[in-house]
Amino acid sequence: MKDTITLTHKLAAFAATSDVQDARMQRFVQLSLFDWATVGIAGTHEPVARAARMMALETAPSSKGATLFGGGRASAAAAALVNGATSHALDYDDTHFGHIGHPSVAVIPAALAAAETAKADAATFLDAVAVGLETACRVGAWLGRSHYEAGFHQTGTSGAFGATAAAARVLGLDAATMSEALCLAATRAAGLKSQFGTMGKPLNAGFAAEVGVTCALLAQAGATSSPDAIEGVQGFGVTHAGSAERAALDQIGTDWQFPRVSYKFHACCHGLHAMLEALRDLRSAGVVPGDVEAVTIRTHPRWLAVCNQPAPATGLQAKFSYRLTAAMMLGGVDTASLEVYSDETCARDDLQALRDRVTVQPDDSLTDSQASVSVVVRGQTLEAHHDILADADPNSLEHRLRAKATTLIGAAAAEDLWNTVSGLGASRSTLDRLAERVGAPAQSAGPRVDPSLAASIMPTA
Amino acid sequence: MKDTITLTHKLAAFAATSDVQDARMQRFVQLSLFDWATVGIAGTHEPVARAARMMALETAPSSKGATLFGGGRASAAAAALVNGATSHALDYDDTHFGHIGHPSVAVIPAALAAAETAKADAATFLDAVAVGLETACRVGAWLGRSHYEAGFHQTGTSGAFGATAAAARVLGLDAATMSEALCLAATRAAGLKSQFGTMGKPLNAGFAAEVGVTCALLAQAGATSSPDAIEGVQGFGVTHAGSAERAALDQIGTDWQFPRVSYKFHACCHGLHAMLEALRDLRSAGVVPGDVEAVTIRTHPRWLAVCNQPAPATGLQAKFSYRLTAAMMLGGVDTASLEVYSDETCARDDLQALRDRVTVQPDDSLTDSQASVSVVVRGQTLEAHHDILADADPNSLEHRLRAKATTLIGAAAAEDLWNTVSGLGASRSTLDRLAERVGAPAQSAGPRVDPSLAASIMPTA
Repeated sequence: MKDTITLTHKLAAFAATSDVQDARMQRFVQLSLFDWATVGIAGTHEPVARAARMMALETAPSSKGATLFGGGRASAAAAALVNGATSHALDYDDTHFGHIGHPSVAVIPAALAAAETAKADAATFLDAVAVGLETACRVGAWLGRSHYEAGFHQTGTSGAFGATAAAARVLGLDAATMSEALCLAATRAAGLKSQFGTMGKPLNAGFAAEVGVTCALLAQAGATSSPDAIEGVQGFGVTHAGSAERAALDQIGTDWQFPRVSYKFHACCHGLHAMLEALRDLRSAGVVPGDVEAVTIRTHPRWLAVCNQPAPATGLQAKFSYRLTAAMMLGGVDTASLEVYSDETCARDDLQALRDRVTVQPDDSLTDSQASVSVVVRGQTLEAHHDILADADPNSLEHRLRAKATTLIGAAAAEDLWNTVSGLGASRSTLDRLAERVGAPAQSAGPRVDPSLAASIMPTA
Repeated sequence: MKDTITLTHKLAAFAATSDVQDARMQRFVQLSLFDWATVGIAGTHEPVARAARMMALETAPSSKGATLFGGGRASAAAAALVNGATSHALDYDDTHFGHIGHPSVAVIPAALAAAETAKADAATFLDAVAVGLETACRVGAWLGRSHYEAGFHQTGTSGAFGATAAAARVLGLDAATMSEALCLAATRAAGLKSQFGTMGKPLNAGFAAEVGVTCALLAQAGATSSPDAIEGVQGFGVTHAGSAERAALDQIGTDWQFPRVSYKFHACCHGLHAMLEALRDLRSAGVVPGDVEAVTIRTHPRWLAVCNQPAPATGLQAKFSYRLTAAMMLGGVDTASLEVYSDETCARDDLQALRDRVTVQPDDSLTDSQASVSVVVRGQTLEAHHDILADADPNSLEHRLRAKATTLIGAAAAEDLWNTVSGLGASRSTLDRLAERVGAPAQSAGPRVDPSLAASIMPTA
């Protein structure tokens, strides 16, 4: 056995056989599954979702297949593609900075499509999602920054490995067959960052999910592959500018990396999120808009070229404005909503008055995930700081993800979805209710998000 | 409009709108379609074909979909995957040295699956195959040797672009929509040479065909993409070690490159083919085995490490033996047959006697596509030379491809297939008969070819 295939063996053994007993991991799987379904339901009417859905329903309909966001069923591979693209359409899903990408939108659609097709139970599905998400994060870290900088989109590439691990785990493949599936994925994993700003970005997530389902099903049917395909001399890593960080697999299965995931709570540029969180803390502490005399924002210098529109006039500009979104947060506007980023919001007198009291300063002592704010309230200065990479309390995240879901899909659907997802842990439960939630017609067409906007909101991955 | 997207525009305009009036191109499309169907039918029982077919029939069956080799119908995407892998399973399909790969096994399955799904007529299908094959060759040349040497398998990568062009042409997409489809393919095109020697190699062809169908259908349904995705700053070319040979697109649509394709007429290592062709000429000129006193083979030195088994004992070794296959050719054995490479053939006294009169010499004045032979017959020396890249007469190729088909699938099936393919040019003909031929149960299970063998037979692409 060659040294070079240690990584593949480790991954395959982990994905096929590990127990998912870690309570924190289980909790984050629950949160991400809920958030994934929320943004997928909310994204159903986006143009990329419509295109993918039309393609699947016209060319791969299957009553025995898997459920699509918005309803209907297609072959497992087609459903994975549609649901991956749909859930990433708003670019509002979870992000993992170790993975350098969006893990859930590749992994969960693959796991669900495989589970519906194989009639797997909920416990199997949840374990599969867990190992898939962890695999995506580990492979993403192994490929590393060099892979991303070279032009590859980890959401698509390491996402394909995570999706394969998840689908193969659903199917119950043993470690040797899991290895075949992962090595088949090595010759299909793809995805370019040059698609950012187009429908190609969410499609990269869908394509990764499809790769996972197809490679797992092929391996189950007896297809085999090269054991060198991931880390051999001309394996996926070397041929795709991978940094080959060996430590990326350390303690896999015991030290779970996925729970470092970040959730998005504001439907605007990622560069604004740390500031919005800091201001949210002050607002929660009782700051009232009418009392605010001055606001100073300190942020990493790189963001000033990205999201510092001083006086936005359109909804699109609003999504890239420290000053206006600061005013929106202090003024009680729900920044999780897609609709509030509008020309009307930009024109509100009260928000403009607040906005004009905001000053933005570069501060290179901060990382690009951090922001510090100071607000002068009746002569008194209040300070707050936030780092969006800081570990968060899962109970607090649950509260906020449920509020986000209420904003995006309505209170009743959000409640129903939460009850469904949180009930999946029960013994012998099936996935029928989850599939029903995914397939329910979305309540309204909702606002259409221009794909160039959706991608530019979250420029980091 | 940026300079950098000239290639994409050229390709899209060519693939969407070019007339295929070139008689030589039409003739080679006919020959390759026939050879593709022959080796696909012959490959139906190979393990990789069985695995892919089982996967498709179990997870994506579709009565309205497209036909699989061996029978049954699946979604267009799944059928393309299955038929691509099946037709490359024996590694006995056509090769193009400018493309650096196997064009037909990626392009034709995509065109056929799209055509069956869209109920396109035969004339549309033939035009689509032509532009798809040409696109694969042009993109393969544009990616160039550097791409191949870096570890990528043009059969999968440029194959995906060719398959997309073919499927999109079948669907009648205009040039702008064709461009979207090709740019979507840029974020999915994949395939590693590290799969050589495994089922991953034929699957690379199937994956490319599937990419073509899916990207064409997505573009038809309204999905859009980045116009920089192929040749932009971080487009497919740069990120995949492409050599960016701009001349690769010169005179596209007027000077057709595909007709430089090579066909395989011997079921053994590619390094033996030039010698076998030269000896075949002498045999045709009347050389009789009993008269042969000595045979000298001159070949490019690199082949001596590949296929110079001096006294093979097994069928596998026979496929890599200059001396034995020379004896087989002179002794009247049908080297196109899969079955003749057997332990029994190795043990035949008459062949061993001939074999022992053969001497193999390296000659670095020859290219690796050339061989020279001299045969001493009753004291007289006869010479012959062959270059497998030399242009061949299409009528002679037709004769030989029909003989190959007779060997592989039987005389009746070969005749029926030829009549079907050669009848496709007629006005208003449909693809029903071609689909029937593809879907007919293969006559016998045939010999099972070990995938490590199948790939090693043809080490060049």
